[in-house]
Amino acid sequence: MELFYGIFSGNTAVLDDAESGHCIRVLRHRCGDEIHVIDGLGTMARCRLVDDSPKKAVAEVEERFPRWGDHPYRLTLACCPTKNNDRFEWLVEKATEVGVDRIIPLIGERSERRIYKSDRARKIALAAAKQSLKAAVPEITEPLSVKDFLTKSPAEGLRLIAYCFEGETLRTSIRAALQEHFPATGGTRAYTADDEQRSVTSDEALPQITVLIGPEGDFSPEEARLALEKGCLPIHLGPSRLRTETAALTAAEAVYLHFL
Amino acid sequence: MELFYGIFSGNTAVLDDAESGHCIRVLRHRCGDEIHVIDGLGTMARCRLVDDSPKKAVAEVEERFPRWGDHPYRLTLACCPTKNNDRFEWLVEKATEVGVDRIIPLIGERSERRIYKSDRARKIALAAAKQSLKAAVPEITEPLSVKDFLTKSPAEGLRLIAYCFEGETLRTSIRAALQEHFPATGGTRAYTADDEQRSVTSDEALPQITVLIGPEGDFSPEEARLALEKGCLPIHLGPSRLRTETAALTAAEAVYLHFL
Repeated sequence: MELFYGIFSGNTAVLDDAESGHCIRVLRHRCGDEIHVIDGLGTMARCRLVDDSPKKAVAEVEERFPRWGDHPYRLTLACCPTKNNDRFEWLVEKATEVGVDRIIPLIGERSERRIYKSDRARKIALAAAKQSLKAAVPEITEPLSVKDFLTKSPAEGLRLIAYCFEGETLRTSIRAALQEHFPATGGTRAYTADDEQRSVTSDEALPQITVLIGPEGDFSPEEARLALEKGCLPIHLGPSRLRTETAALTAAEAVYLHFL
Repeated sequence: MELFYGIFSGNTAVLDDAESGHCIRVLRHRCGDEIHVIDGLGTMARCRLVDDSPKKAVAEVEERFPRWGDHPYRLTLACCPTKNNDRFEWLVEKATEVGVDRIIPLIGERSERRIYKSDRARKIALAAAKQSLKAAVPEITEPLSVKDFLTKSPAEGLRLIAYCFEGETLRTSIRAALQEHFPATGGTRAYTADDEQRSVTSDEALPQITVLIGPEGDFSPEEARLALEKGCLPIHLGPSRLRTETAALTAAEAVYLHFL
């Protein structure tokens, strides 16, 4: 199944230049063809192509599938971009495949990368969402300092911070923290074909989880102290020494696997 | 902490050309310096440099740490290499960081990549093991066909196969399969500084787990049938459509997180 990204207005979806070119020039779709368009916000629509312009294709919506390819939680990864940009972009792709809602590039006191341009990461998130059949594209925000993030953003849901100061004994594993806050529901039910593309329509409040991951040189003690003051729970990701991007993906995997 | 890889013989560790160059030319170690050398098999040794030749440095062992940086399970990932080689090499790096013991490049009936050279992946595994402070370097075997793997390799421990045939209803999640076979031990204990570098010396039998991951086009129905005949348990990795390498890493993360 091939997905396109479009801007929806009423019953019409308009594809931008890049998406139109791919749909019309590369895949040679023509007026009357059925195509599937996501709005990037969670809805996938089965559409009929009504204008096959390779610059600005237009399709009419025939059926909408809200929360298509959605996961049963809301996860924010607040993570310091790595010195090597490829590694952070890899994280964006993989976390999108697994299931993440927002990625906040954090600039920590010890970050070597102090400037981050989010545009490229947004393109990677869109491509990964389409590839992994998700109608919602994770939001990649503009970068924020750790301090601003902790003092200015709303303190919603369970907020976890992973750091690895020597001798620290207070932390529990991310697995134990998730189990405590969101007790497992069993997880032994069989998998059915319906699960392949769930279309969750209920609007119940989903568990909100935020995980903070520091830069290669870790958070500073002041940043960690501020995080605890602001109600973040210190966690560890196990005995392996993980690179920044591996730590962030491990956190995303822990949340994904917890809610399986 | 910087680790070097060496060949051990009695009380002596010899670094090869590349490792010697890095140790002597780049890091400018000299006779009398303390260095840390892994044997790639699980032991890290605190050594004293006795020959600072940049082609073949030699160190004398002062103290050995068996099973240094080890994890409490034995995991084999039997995974079809991806069409794009970078993606498989990325998997080798990430799985090594998280904790894996053996990676078997599988050639499936539907594999687009039918030839795989394991040498480059071995270098990546070594670099990742050193970077993530593990004394054991995962073994990257020569490639094997799925059929040969299933019929010729010993059927030890829990063997799981992930595939995604439409309408299949028999599978349970990897999380449920692990919980059933290796009931959780709680996982809520606090993390101590000792855990940072555990030196597990007991030789108890560790849980043996093998996960089979197919190529982009999935296993063939015949391969899946043979796997079930041979005692593999069919599992799913959740509702997300994951790329081959993401599926394999997700399986490694599930095992790692289960034993946290």
